[in-house]
Amino acid sequence: MSDALLFPHRDLLGIAGLQPHEIMFLLDQAEQWVSLNRATEKRDDRLHGLTLINAFFENSTRTLLSFEIAGKRLGADVVNMHAAQSSVKKGETLIDTAMTLNAMRADVMVIRHASSGAVRLIADKVDCPVLNAGDGRHEHPTQALLDALTIRHRKGTVHGLTVAICGDVLHSRVARSNILCLTSLGADVRVVGPPTLISAEVERMGVKTFTDFNAGLDGADVVMMLRLQTERMTGGFVPSLREYHQFWGLTPERLARAKPDALVMHPGPMNRGVEIASSVADHPERSAITEQVEMGVAVRMACLDVLTRRRRGVEGWE
Amino acid sequence: MSDALLFPHRDLLGIAGLQPHEIMFLLDQAEQWVSLNRATEKRDDRLHGLTLINAFFENSTRTLLSFEIAGKRLGADVVNMHAAQSSVKKGETLIDTAMTLNAMRADVMVIRHASSGAVRLIADKVDCPVLNAGDGRHEHPTQALLDALTIRHRKGTVHGLTVAICGDVLHSRVARSNILCLTSLGADVRVVGPPTLISAEVERMGVKTFTDFNAGLDGADVVMMLRLQTERMTGGFVPSLREYHQFWGLTPERLARAKPDALVMHPGPMNRGVEIASSVADHPERSAITEQVEMGVAVRMACLDVLTRRRRGVEGWE
Amino acid sequence: MSDALLFPHRDLLGIAGLQPHEIMFLLDQAEQWVSLNRATEKRDDRLHGLTLINAFFENSTRTLLSFEIAGKRLGADVVNMHAAQSSVKKGETLIDTAMTLNAMRADVMVIRHASSGAVRLIADKVDCPVLNAGDGRHEHPTQALLDALTIRHRKGTVHGLTVAICGDVLHSRVARSNILCLTSLGADVRVVGPPTLISAEVERMGVKTFTDFNAGLDGADVVMMLRLQTERMTGGFVPSLREYHQFWGLTPERLARAKPDALVMHPGPMNRGVEIASSVADHPERSAITEQVEMGVAVRMACLDVLTRRRRGVEGWE
Repeated sequence: MSDALLFPHRDLLGIAGLQPHEIMFLLDQAEQWVSLNRATEKRDDRLHGLTLINAFFENSTRTLLSFEIAGKRLGADVVNMHAAQSSVKKGETLIDTAMTLNAMRADVMVIRHASSGAVRLIADKVDCPVLNAGDGRHEHPTQALLDALTIRHRKGTVHGLTVAICGDVLHSRVARSNILCLTSLGADVRVVGPPTLISAEVERMGVKTFTDFNAGLDGADVVMMLRLQTERMTGGFVPSLREYHQFWGLTPERLARAKPDALVMHPGPMNRGVEIASSVADHPERSAITEQVEMGVAVRMACLDVLTRRRRGVEGWE
Repeated sequence: MSDALLFPHRDLLGIAGLQPHEIMFLLDQAEQWVSLNRATEKRDDRLHGLTLINAFFENSTRTLLSFEIAGKRLGADVVNMHAAQSSVKKGETLIDTAMTLNAMRADVMVIRHASSGAVRLIADKVDCPVLNAGDGRHEHPTQALLDALTIRHRKGTVHGLTVAICGDVLHSRVARSNILCLTSLGADVRVVGPPTLISAEVERMGVKTFTDFNAGLDGADVVMMLRLQTERMTGGFVPSLREYHQFWGLTPERLARAKPDALVMHPGPMNRGVEIASSVADHPERSAITEQVEMGVAVRMACLDVLTRRRRGVEGWE
Repeated sequence: MSDALLFPHRDLLGIAGLQPHEIMFLLDQAEQWVSLNRATEKRDDRLHGLTLINAFFENSTRTLLSFEIAGKRLGADVVNMHAAQSSVKKGETLIDTAMTLNAMRADVMVIRHASSGAVRLIADKVDCPVLNAGDGRHEHPTQALLDALTIRHRKGTVHGLTVAICGDVLHSRVARSNILCLTSLGADVRVVGPPTLISAEVERMGVKTFTDFNAGLDGADVVMMLRLQTERMTGGFVPSLREYHQFWGLTPERLARAKPDALVMHPGPMNRGVEIASSVADHPERSAITEQVEMGVAVRMACLDVLTRRRRGVEGWE
């Protein structure tokens, strides 16, 4: 079998469309980068001479840094395009911007955009692999992969675990990608949140929904809190931050409803005292929050490596 | 003859002052980079250990990206200074900023500035080669070089071609540099636009001016549209964008006035539906717009290479 | 003796706490980088594969550029985090941001922050060496080191020299770090400024204070002007810029009160015509202002090298 069949996609636009063994392949590939990143000299040159363009039409410090570091550690020439400086401001269309980056002979593009589907629109036009770093409310696949890798590191496997995804599910591409990824890997996924923040679409994804926080946490192996996206909410989804914390913040008392060794996760940046209490976020054994960040760099290195294998002529991937 | 005589200038501040053979030399040098950039491993290390500073006092995503990629593909240490972050905001003079960059031992500087002449002011003060990446309404020499290279790639030569430069000539350093470059290479250059957007100075450059769009396009080999610089226009140069398109937009009907195989060019970013119709911009055979972007990286690599040869002690250039 | 005893600190948070021989060690180490930076190929690979994160919560073009260039010339993978793009805007705490950078496995962090003590707060939490690039009114140690190196280059030694630090001492971390550094190296330090701009704390540092400019300059070997931090001043510290110049600007007449070969310094960016007259700033023999910038890159290279020796396993530093 050609190695290319292990991951036969040119792009990584979402978790939707990936087979379980393809997800597992990316996670397995990431392990070598976890090890390398823990060494002092964390450098591999397999992307030497390739140009990685991070085109961020929506700001994100941590995701951009993570991809930038991932690309540099693989030896790529990394350039960042921030929306703030962008020609978009001069009236250029998204497709024209993408065609420009393509004409500069990018070898791989990482795109983040506030509109669902914008990344696919770009991928359809350009000649190189495209990685979705978050598009609107659609998907954020590397976040889901890093979360799965974190769970696997801490729990040994994802299969058979009960994972409660809690909070602002409505605005969250992170929730969407995680539901797809964890379900695919055999987890029992629950979605927990106030009725105004759970979409009908999520219910159609076949997960159990809970509007009672305590019931949703009951017996969970993993409690994945979502960021309350205060900057995205315009309407009256939430009465006040204080009330949100009172009813939907993960406190030590609520966490006690989950399994005694339940893992606490959060994609960051956290609103401490809103969706999560500081004592839970900082719990030395239970919280995996900083480990998620570490896994993020490794997962992104794996994706950049795998997606560029064809063009690099790696044996078995031509 | 010493090789250095092929291009005896320390800086590239404009097309003015360049001999035709010097322009041709830069274009010839760019060819190797066109080839390299089409390979997967697009890396040469001739600028290894040299520091390239891109000092952009005026924003420009695409030009900055192009120079940044060019520098990195040649192995330079590239650092960008954006006006937005600049000490200029703290009241520092332009010369002091330049002297600071110089004292950090830049090996080559790429400068963009909103004021005509600002780049020369800096070049007069610093010890390293300076490349003008656009200054006010003065010059944008690498844009002219990449346009000439694009024409040569598609038409075989520039000499003897009729090139119509159309639109907002008044605000355009691109037009100025292109008139100088194309005239120097033996093209028959016309300037076409509404009377309010053609300057008396352009007329003094010895090109034919047309205020009738159709007449200006008649028999042209190359139609070079300019961006309507809406962000620079304060007065009543243009009645409305819709009217501008009606009278001065390049439509398929208008393009039919040019030669059947006429090339369509635009420096980008485009205002689709204003100075150019989408069907023209996207015409598979006629439009050379994305090729211009590709040639841009190659031309900038050539300039960075040639201008640093003396300091790198390249044989024949000491 | 283990080489690590030459500089037994993990971080460089300030000059306070450094022994004179430790300061001298950093200055001595910087000399090699002064030489390298004057060569064309200014590249050393000792930080190859290490990740340097410049986290600037407060803007500073020149300091950021200086650290970025320093890191790249040593071969590090350098990534910049600007406050403007930061997750801080999304409500993340400073410590959480720092823990995120740490989890990405930074090997050394350079931090600038508007609050005194913020850098130490971060250093206490992360696993890698931290360099203070300026925190509030507290310290800016690499500025003091580069100033000392500049003086030593021009005067041969710091010991026994009379150094007058003049101007807006109240708002200046540069003044604080310089008082500590120059005093430690045996200089006779004076602080000169209007009473509203000299803090009681400075007086407690054991330097002589002068509120008469002429008297303070009398017989000085080095006149170090401070930037009037107009952007930080909210109250009525200064009547007007014109009056400030009249009473506290360094003019040729005033400079004549210092020794005939007195050195003029300024950390930049300068307010010409405010705290310093242009003829003084540009004096070919007396002004060392651009040399300060040059020494800055060298000093920062020395600090990045020395602070990472333990983790790189350099012999004698394990």
